[in-house]
Amino acid sequence: MTTDISSLDPRIIARGREFFKSISGESPSIFNKGWWTGKVMDWSMKNEDFKIQMFRFVDVLPCLNTSESLSRHIEEYFATDDANIPDVLKWGATKTKIGGGLVAKVLNKTIRSNIESMARQFIIGQVSKEAVKGIKKLRKDGFAFVLDLLGEATVSEAESAAYQAGYLEVLEAIQKELGKWKPLEGGSGDLDWGHAPKVNVAVKPTAFYSQSKSVDLDGTASGMMERIEPIYKKVMEMGGFMCIDMESLKYKDATIELYKRLRTKYPDYPHLGIVFQAYLRCVDDDVRGLLDWSREKGLPISIRLVKGAYWDYETVMAKQNDWPVPVWTHKPESDIAFERVAKMILENADICHFACASHNIRSISAVMETASELNVPEERYEFQVLYGMAEPVRKGLKNVAKRVRLYCPYGDLLPGMGYLVRRLLENTANESFLKQTFADEADMDVLLENPEVTLRRQLEEKCVTPEPEQRDGLSRFSNFPVVDFTLESERNAFPASIAKIRSRMGGEVPLFINGKEVRTDVHLDSYNPADPSEIIGSVCQAGVAEADMAIDAASEAYLSWRDVPPRERAEVLLKASQYLKDNIHDLSATQVLEVGKQWDQAHADIAEAIDFLEYYAREMIRLGNPRRMGRAPGEMSQLFYQGKGVAAVIAPWNFPLAISVGMVSAAIVSGCPVVYKPAGISSCVGYGLVEMWKAAGLPDGVFNYCPGKGSVIGDHIVDHPKVSVIAFTGSMEVGLRIQERAAKVHPGQQQCKKVIAEMGGKNGTIIDDDADLDEAVLGVLYAAFGFQGQKCSACSRVIVLDAIYDRFIERLTEAAKSVKLGPSENPSNYMGPVVDKAAQENVLRYLEIAESEGNVLVKHEVSADLKATGGCYVPLTIVDGITKEHRIAQEEVFGPILSVMRAKDMDEALDIANSTRFALTGAIYSRSPRNLERAFNEFRVGNLYLNKPSVGALVERHAFGGFKMSGVGSKSGGPDYLLQFLDPRLVCENTMRRGFTPIEEDDEWVS
Amino acid sequence: MTTDISSLDPRIIARGREFFKSISGESPSIFNKGWWTGKVMDWSMKNEDFKIQMFRFVDVLPCLNTSESLSRHIEEYFATDDANIPDVLKWGATKTKIGGGLVAKVLNKTIRSNIESMARQFIIGQVSKEAVKGIKKLRKDGFAFVLDLLGEATVSEAESAAYQAGYLEVLEAIQKELGKWKPLEGGSGDLDWGHAPKVNVAVKPTAFYSQSKSVDLDGTASGMMERIEPIYKKVMEMGGFMCIDMESLKYKDATIELYKRLRTKYPDYPHLGIVFQAYLRCVDDDVRGLLDWSREKGLPISIRLVKGAYWDYETVMAKQNDWPVPVWTHKPESDIAFERVAKMILENADICHFACASHNIRSISAVMETASELNVPEERYEFQVLYGMAEPVRKGLKNVAKRVRLYCPYGDLLPGMGYLVRRLLENTANESFLKQTFADEADMDVLLENPEVTLRRQLEEKCVTPEPEQRDGLSRFSNFPVVDFTLESERNAFPASIAKIRSRMGGEVPLFINGKEVRTDVHLDSYNPADPSEIIGSVCQAGVAEADMAIDAASEAYLSWRDVPPRERAEVLLKASQYLKDNIHDLSATQVLEVGKQWDQAHADIAEAIDFLEYYAREMIRLGNPRRMGRAPGEMSQLFYQGKGVAAVIAPWNFPLAISVGMVSAAIVSGCPVVYKPAGISSCVGYGLVEMWKAAGLPDGVFNYCPGKGSVIGDHIVDHPKVSVIAFTGSMEVGLRIQERAAKVHPGQQQCKKVIAEMGGKNGTIIDDDADLDEAVLGVLYAAFGFQGQKCSACSRVIVLDAIYDRFIERLTEAAKSVKLGPSENPSNYMGPVVDKAAQENVLRYLEIAESEGNVLVKHEVSADLKATGGCYVPLTIVDGITKEHRIAQEEVFGPILSVMRAKDMDEALDIANSTRFALTGAIYSRSPRNLERAFNEFRVGNLYLNKPSVGALVERHAFGGFKMSGVGSKSGGPDYLLQFLDPRLVCENTMRRGFTPIEEDDEWVS
Repeated sequence: MTTDISSLDPRIIARGREFFKSISGESPSIFNKGWWTGKVMDWSMKNEDFKIQMFRFVDVLPCLNTSESLSRHIEEYFATDDANIPDVLKWGATKTKIGGGLVAKVLNKTIRSNIESMARQFIIGQVSKEAVKGIKKLRKDGFAFVLDLLGEATVSEAESAAYQAGYLEVLEAIQKELGKWKPLEGGSGDLDWGHAPKVNVAVKPTAFYSQSKSVDLDGTASGMMERIEPIYKKVMEMGGFMCIDMESLKYKDATIELYKRLRTKYPDYPHLGIVFQAYLRCVDDDVRGLLDWSREKGLPISIRLVKGAYWDYETVMAKQNDWPVPVWTHKPESDIAFERVAKMILENADICHFACASHNIRSISAVMETASELNVPEERYEFQVLYGMAEPVRKGLKNVAKRVRLYCPYGDLLPGMGYLVRRLLENTANESFLKQTFADEADMDVLLENPEVTLRRQLEEKCVTPEPEQRDGLSRFSNFPVVDFTLESERNAFPASIAKIRSRMGGEVPLFINGKEVRTDVHLDSYNPADPSEIIGSVCQAGVAEADMAIDAASEAYLSWRDVPPRERAEVLLKASQYLKDNIHDLSATQVLEVGKQWDQAHADIAEAIDFLEYYAREMIRLGNPRRMGRAPGEMSQLFYQGKGVAAVIAPWNFPLAISVGMVSAAIVSGCPVVYKPAGISSCVGYGLVEMWKAAGLPDGVFNYCPGKGSVIGDHIVDHPKVSVIAFTGSMEVGLRIQERAAKVHPGQQQCKKVIAEMGGKNGTIIDDDADLDEAVLGVLYAAFGFQGQKCSACSRVIVLDAIYDRFIERLTEAAKSVKLGPSENPSNYMGPVVDKAAQENVLRYLEIAESEGNVLVKHEVSADLKATGGCYVPLTIVDGITKEHRIAQEEVFGPILSVMRAKDMDEALDIANSTRFALTGAIYSRSPRNLERAFNEFRVGNLYLNKPSVGALVERHAFGGFKMSGVGSKSGGPDYLLQFLDPRLVCENTMRRGFTPIEEDDEWVS
Repeated sequence: MTTDISSLDPRIIARGREFFKSISGESPSIFNKGWWTGKVMDWSMKNEDFKIQMFRFVDVLPCLNTSESLSRHIEEYFATDDANIPDVLKWGATKTKIGGGLVAKVLNKTIRSNIESMARQFIIGQVSKEAVKGIKKLRKDGFAFVLDLLGEATVSEAESAAYQAGYLEVLEAIQKELGKWKPLEGGSGDLDWGHAPKVNVAVKPTAFYSQSKSVDLDGTASGMMERIEPIYKKVMEMGGFMCIDMESLKYKDATIELYKRLRTKYPDYPHLGIVFQAYLRCVDDDVRGLLDWSREKGLPISIRLVKGAYWDYETVMAKQNDWPVPVWTHKPESDIAFERVAKMILENADICHFACASHNIRSISAVMETASELNVPEERYEFQVLYGMAEPVRKGLKNVAKRVRLYCPYGDLLPGMGYLVRRLLENTANESFLKQTFADEADMDVLLENPEVTLRRQLEEKCVTPEPEQRDGLSRFSNFPVVDFTLESERNAFPASIAKIRSRMGGEVPLFINGKEVRTDVHLDSYNPADPSEIIGSVCQAGVAEADMAIDAASEAYLSWRDVPPRERAEVLLKASQYLKDNIHDLSATQVLEVGKQWDQAHADIAEAIDFLEYYAREMIRLGNPRRMGRAPGEMSQLFYQGKGVAAVIAPWNFPLAISVGMVSAAIVSGCPVVYKPAGISSCVGYGLVEMWKAAGLPDGVFNYCPGKGSVIGDHIVDHPKVSVIAFTGSMEVGLRIQERAAKVHPGQQQCKKVIAEMGGKNGTIIDDDADLDEAVLGVLYAAFGFQGQKCSACSRVIVLDAIYDRFIERLTEAAKSVKLGPSENPSNYMGPVVDKAAQENVLRYLEIAESEGNVLVKHEVSADLKATGGCYVPLTIVDGITKEHRIAQEEVFGPILSVMRAKDMDEALDIANSTRFALTGAIYSRSPRNLERAFNEFRVGNLYLNKPSVGALVERHAFGGFKMSGVGSKSGGPDYLLQFLDPRLVCENTMRRGFTPIEEDDEWVS
């Protein structure tokens, strides 16, 4: 087929050139930049954003019935800084708001009347009288017409009935005038051009039946038929022509069915047409099918061929429904199909009348030459163009072909605006022939080029450019550096800060609620565990009243804090991080004194706090960017998150700043204001958060410092209906209690509570028989006795394979005996006091258990001098002969007692390792690839370390947390942590209006 | 400085050329491919993976004390298909396992002895006697020596003391021989070359003090001094030389301090040296500092300059601790520094003796020419190379400079292997001078090139190539196509399938537990709501015994299913999906009959089930790929997930297949076997899951179909200690009860339970005054009455702005009256019966409430004929006059009752919209950009739709779920959903052994 047309190509092009010549210098009125409409068209073609706003504004305009409403919409659509907004609109947009009054009203009126006159350009009249008048004028100019009644979607049978009535009304009106109209040239009798009825109407069938649905083909065709038949009868009565328009693909089969029923019911009346759309991939089959039907039934037909007006809509629907795209995806393919199908119809001119409906001079020329080649008689085909469009084309057509019919919509401006938008789109689309011809002034050779050639060229030009990576302007997260004691400055900074803090401490520490200090009568003294006579601070204790005050403050703050943009919330964390960095030595010193941390341990705690702030800030920015879901065009579906509500943070003393800052900052950056209850023992370190958030400029009420006894305020906070999240780190017993209480919904409670609980551990380290003992001995020593074993990650069970047992134990015990014990202030000491007297008592109790259950290998104590100071010292203890049934192998001690357990092989070692209720951390030292892999898979704990100690987890790199009875909730410092404070929300916008949708860069558009 | 050396460059290069000439044709023995070692070196240089395995194997070898252990490790390290494994190892690896016995033993012995002899090449002796003998031989060949005692890390003071004793022992042994040694050439008296002590030892200071730490500079230096001083005294007694070696940067300052203390304490004895490493960025400052100190104190010193042996280690540590990298990051920079610092030392030859320790001929030549240029006397500098390395270099040096000293380690093979690995690395590193010279046979000009030139060239050559994107071989997720009723085949398929299902149904439906059908005596009949006399199936009901059986089966299956690779679990889902695709019409037909779904609604339910399977399969593959955390070299930290345990799935009837399959497949793909309790009303649809999983080949016990009365087995399942996850979709009342019960930990329970509950909604749709009513009317109609309003997402409140109220209501009520009601089987009907008689009663009860609270606008009922059939019909009802206080505005009806609520403006509309306990879905129709944005932010529900109906959420695109009392847990079909069934685990491996680590592609290595 292609070859056929190609052979005509020189003639088609020659004819096209003549056509162009005959209209040279003319331009459609809509592109006339002297007029408002022309300006808008020009702006629209230059600026895609403006075009979207403009066309959407046109769409909504008929609804804007009041001056206020109009003003507001003008402002919303056009009050931007974009220099590309036409002045008249911009001025209107800014002035309507400020000026108000008369100026605004005048402006609004101007804008409305400009747009309405723009619409009127495409509509022959708003009421039937106007329409009839317009038709009369057209006929005077020598053009025939086809009349179409604009209609909004009919959603009910009442509306469909009204639509039908509208048609009948205009037919009545025409009938009255009809007699007065002379036939168009060549006319004899009543027929234009000697063969065509003067009256010609188009009907959109779905508007006549509100219950149309594709699943119900028969019902839909019947429903349409019922209301269209009376109109057809009226048309026949007037000797007119009726064409059934084709709408979206969904109703194509019902429409063809309707045509067949109507055509069959009135077999002797030939003036019934139907439309086919060349942009549909199925157009050849459909046209061929109807031609065959016509021949079979002996019923002549009439076809209007168009390119199709719902290309965006059909594509969007297909993509959204995951259907194959039913239209050609390259514009030239539609042009090719148009020429091909036109030829098919012209070849059947004996049974099919043809209306060629296109503004494309190449397509028109092709039809003319094909008809001429096939010797099709003139009365068997005519040309149609849209009213108000492409005036030069219609003029040229009339010059050449004479038989030109204008498609004339009439009706209310409200549905008219939808029609206007479609026409504007048609005029401004990049691939529009009109735009290319009259606005872009493209090369004539290209315009007349065989579309096959165009297609090939376009496909060749297509090339994929990779998308640039997105950045958020923030450096990638990296951990704060570990303290480097090779630097003299670091070695000197600690004693200096300790002296400084020591000189200041000891005073009263107030609560901090809703941005204000609050003092209470009940105090708790926090002391130095190396010297209990040294008081760090006298901390005010909250009671129920203060707890309620704090919850109310947080609850009030929630209403605004949740809506602060994620990026801004993140910035507050980054400021807080800077404060910690600036004060790291003083903050470390406070921990050395209050909880007995060694210098490096204290520094690591602040560093971890910094890491949490930096990491969660970035995480919130990541999560705060709404994530587009799916890529369907015409739809913008975005997933984002909202803070759950007030978070109660119940913190432990062992990582007194890090874990507190971690839980608190995660809540805050997520939009959840916090009521923070530090551990009593480390409340002075906890007060550091008050200073930190002040320095960061956090709004009042978002962070509330509320130390107090668990027995007094613990349950009260957990039960409170206004608390939405409880973030807890501490013992299993307390964690489970919180979980159970929080699951109960209390009166007035608006949400189910979320509990994040990090609980205990009983962590094992396996020593394989090929372990590198240089590393294993020091690793176990550090994991078991670093910070006196007071870490939930601490190694409390070392599981040693038989073959290496003696050698390992020998080196381990010697190593354990070699370390120095004493105050953590002195950096030569490896181990200091436990955190307080209660901890000391608890460890000593477990020491008795250990001694009774196993054999003591090491019981390394501080000197008698130090003992005499009253510091909270306990011996560094290693016992062996422990099996998994022993209490010391099952219960968390939280102190420097290490159990040694013997395993005959790796199976047994793994069995022992997994034999507790906990699943927090673990480690294995091995140089057997297979055993390392087995441990990877079968040593089931939250954080497992291969050839590394089980402690010292870093934010992100070692995102931390366990399962079984070690915790509920996802790893802190990990990618899933913030989700626990957040409720996901999804907003899905249908961005298509009137079949028109902006194309997003990441749309899965057709290729 | 650079210029200075550059001016010498021609002379340096000339000398280098001569040097090369003098050794032409010679090669270090280690590269001799005729020998086993040479082969291994060759293989290692050609294959990075083999090199890593080989060197790691060398490292672990000394630990492998039994034949079994050796065999096992050979197999683990080398039993791969890699053709690059040397035959002797490969054969050993495969044969040791099978053959066992004698062959294995012989092979093992060969391998061990090969590697040991490899090590011996670099070690002068294992015991002092051997060492002395070796030294004697070296001296005979004209080389001086410096002796170094190999040591493992000393982890205790006992080990440090033993190490000290070792030194004293070898010194004693030497002392006995010393008298017999003639001085080396030019020697007069006892001194070699006329100026150098014959005895020369090197000490590694940290080995002498196990409690060394950088934070404790003074204590560390003292600790080292205490044990090194006796050795130094012994050396002095023998008239020898002692050099303090430099180890890692961490101890550099303590080492310098030690040197100063020792040098000061014995000011008159000049033969004390120290080492500096040219690869440190601080090397210039350090050397300058010691030279200044020497001048100031008037104490001559001696410096050995090396490039440095811990480059990988220092870099890895810095990266892991987020410190600035302390070493030069480009090899030529170290070479440049070496030449620069050598010059500095030579310029101070009057107070500083210099030992140039390098194998690099360019570096050596530069030192020679610089010394010559500066007229440094020969006795002020010497050259050192390592024993067993670079024999041609030492030979060349001896020819030219005479004064060559070999660095000779001696000691046990165990620490010797660590030393061997370092030497092997040095020989095989790409940037190694030795490798380039003797293995790669690089161009001499390049080898002798000024390193400044080399550096510039290398920097210029560097270019970044983008990483290719990772794929997993699976197409991207896309939703299953919506049914397209324009296709005749679809329109015909439904009635055919309905007839087929109808012909088969009505029989007994068994339970399905652990892969077997189980029948019980108690049955529940499921019926067609359009005709309750039609029985769909008689479903066996589980009691407590059957529930326990199902939980036990799941619990047992968990132990293996959790370890099935995620990809394999995903494949099962994809097979299940294929089954649904193949049977979509039959499955739809079952729903039409059992729950009264319209064709399209039923099809959409199966499509959603397919989507869940396809999406969760891909999600698990995504999550199943361990995610590397951090990029620190020397560490491989991976985050991955493990299924929590047995999941109980309690499903609703309204999306009987989709929601069931969603919850069940999420659990299963996560590794959690399922006990599935379908809703009684839709148990036959639920049985479809049995067929589906059978078709997919899911192992027995992973899915258990367990229908039963909630009152009988509900609490029992929820409370069961072996249940880890409860996934529920249904009413708020039941959801909250489950939550509360599940929070209690029962005896024997190993984990805290996770509850995922999707509960109710009371969803509002706002109609703004500029809404496109064509879309809004149809959208609300569909959202409110689609599937009889029995969706948790259904619109049950339409909130209409005053200005558009009348027009909207008029169109809505007309539209509502136009739709057809009747059996869902007939596709022309818009609305069918509700799901059962109980639902009918419930809706009718709410209808009374609605009628009493508001004004009925529409009460559209089925015909009397249909009513008479006894079908569960209720009227389609619209009431207005509803305010937010009304029950009908607050309680979930789950049926076709729509409340109309009037709002004066958007503020009030949003207030009404948010005024319930629920927060599930919502919608707004508006063409005001600002109001759409407000709704985006302030209409706080899980799924909000802009200009779209609130129903019909698609998997992924509209990930579904709410908050407040609408649910706990994250959106189904969304990216966070599977996380709820998973416990995160992290495994962090220290990949560095003996300072050697494989470099991963995504390491954050130095640039």
